[in-house]
Amino acid sequence: MSYPKKTTIGLFDSGVGGLTVLRALIDRIPDVNYLYFGDTARLPYGSKSAETVAHYAVGAIRYLEEQGADLLVIACNTATALAFKEIEAATKFQVIGVVEPGAQAATAASTTRNVVVIGTEATVGSHAYRVALETRGVSAREKACPLLVPLVEEGWVDHPVTEQVAQIYLSDVFGDQSDNADVLLLGCTHYPLLRPLLRRIVPEHIEIVDSAESTAETVAAVVGKAGTRLSQEVGARPLEPHLKFFATDSAEKFIRMGSRFLGLPVKDVTHVGLKE
Amino acid sequence: MSYPKKTTIGLFDSGVGGLTVLRALIDRIPDVNYLYFGDTARLPYGSKSAETVAHYAVGAIRYLEEQGADLLVIACNTATALAFKEIEAATKFQVIGVVEPGAQAATAASTTRNVVVIGTEATVGSHAYRVALETRGVSAREKACPLLVPLVEEGWVDHPVTEQVAQIYLSDVFGDQSDNADVLLLGCTHYPLLRPLLRRIVPEHIEIVDSAESTAETVAAVVGKAGTRLSQEVGARPLEPHLKFFATDSAEKFIRMGSRFLGLPVKDVTHVGLKE
Repeated sequence: MSYPKKTTIGLFDSGVGGLTVLRALIDRIPDVNYLYFGDTARLPYGSKSAETVAHYAVGAIRYLEEQGADLLVIACNTATALAFKEIEAATKFQVIGVVEPGAQAATAASTTRNVVVIGTEATVGSHAYRVALETRGVSAREKACPLLVPLVEEGWVDHPVTEQVAQIYLSDVFGDQSDNADVLLLGCTHYPLLRPLLRRIVPEHIEIVDSAESTAETVAAVVGKAGTRLSQEVGARPLEPHLKFFATDSAEKFIRMGSRFLGLPVKDVTHVGLKE
Repeated sequence: MSYPKKTTIGLFDSGVGGLTVLRALIDRIPDVNYLYFGDTARLPYGSKSAETVAHYAVGAIRYLEEQGADLLVIACNTATALAFKEIEAATKFQVIGVVEPGAQAATAASTTRNVVVIGTEATVGSHAYRVALETRGVSAREKACPLLVPLVEEGWVDHPVTEQVAQIYLSDVFGDQSDNADVLLLGCTHYPLLRPLLRRIVPEHIEIVDSAESTAETVAAVVGKAGTRLSQEVGARPLEPHLKFFATDSAEKFIRMGSRFLGLPVKDVTHVGLKE
């Protein structure tokens, strides 16, 4: 597949969590167009069934295509884990999810070939990460942490309650050191905001890997391969990413929450009405 | 309005929380038909905008009508607070929400005419309870408690973390005793499951009132007024409520979560597909 000079990358997530992936992308490829679709009227996906998530995800991908996206990034672990095949089947463009890059990065980081994966109930229930890791000869233990997303959304990213909840979840998986896991893979796009807190409570020898970073690297490689990274323009003028956002719930709320996740001001947000 | 001999009460909620209202109804009116619609594919409503919630609620109400409901109960505080007028305008049948009965019960319980209301972000942001209480000459302080719903859904209804979170939220409103509040109104259908925990941390002189109970009383009065309470049949044979459930996400999950909220086995669940 060849990309036009100015690729338009369409990112999709249930809400604002995928903005951590967008941020990692902007840092690597500042000079393409980005469209970001947050299905905030129907979030969270993490507690929903595969059928429902696939249905929402395919609709969002079609919308991004209509808006001009020619490379699609599923910046949502639950949607990638539950609906990647359905999404791929629904589009002619290349689709990159977060699971394969995350599994790749965890594999590279693990010496003991033992990884712990945390994510939503749906992501963990799908065992998508375990399968992706086992394919690479790495064993995985998975742990659902349903309360971490609401705690991040409440803004309690460095709160004693969040620390206590994370400790309860992680003592289950790190209490028994018999299998020598040396990597913790953050299998949810909300979790990078908890990285400093998790670093404090996870044993020192455990490396923390997040799929936002590794997904951005994969996308950069794909775009770069087609010769469209306009890095020759660097130096001529500061590169300004072209960002456009779509949200199914209120635009105002997306702006408020989104800026925290993106670490940049979120401005151009269009509300997308749902027919049903 | 006159009700047929066998009224069909249609209850609507974003998920399983409204089953606490259904339970209170069954205890009072066991011998009518109940249809319960849980919009589990799009829950929670508590963090969403009024426009989105109204759109979902009207769709659900129309579905219940098609299934034969002739009296509608909005067993969801957020939907009542944000979309009651839109729902009323969309149906020819009588609609009963949870806010007015809740405000009525809190008014009756308060000697000092000062009430504290807790609920989701959307319910509190709408000030629907404050308005309903002020109309009755009662002052209200409202406090959003966004983490309580996920904690209940995680099953942590009697967990030290939940107690700590509730204490953080409630210390804001009960720390300052200057206004002499003597009632805590539970403005969310998930909260009755936290009643024992809340009882432990709320000052002793504060009465806890929940809108599930008071809504059921209102509905019983409405149905009774039309002469359709078949209480004359009591004693002839044990009354069996006719319960039928509809869920937009997986039926299996609804059965699992629902039984906890209803306190009865949830059996006859139909999955309702969403067109979008």
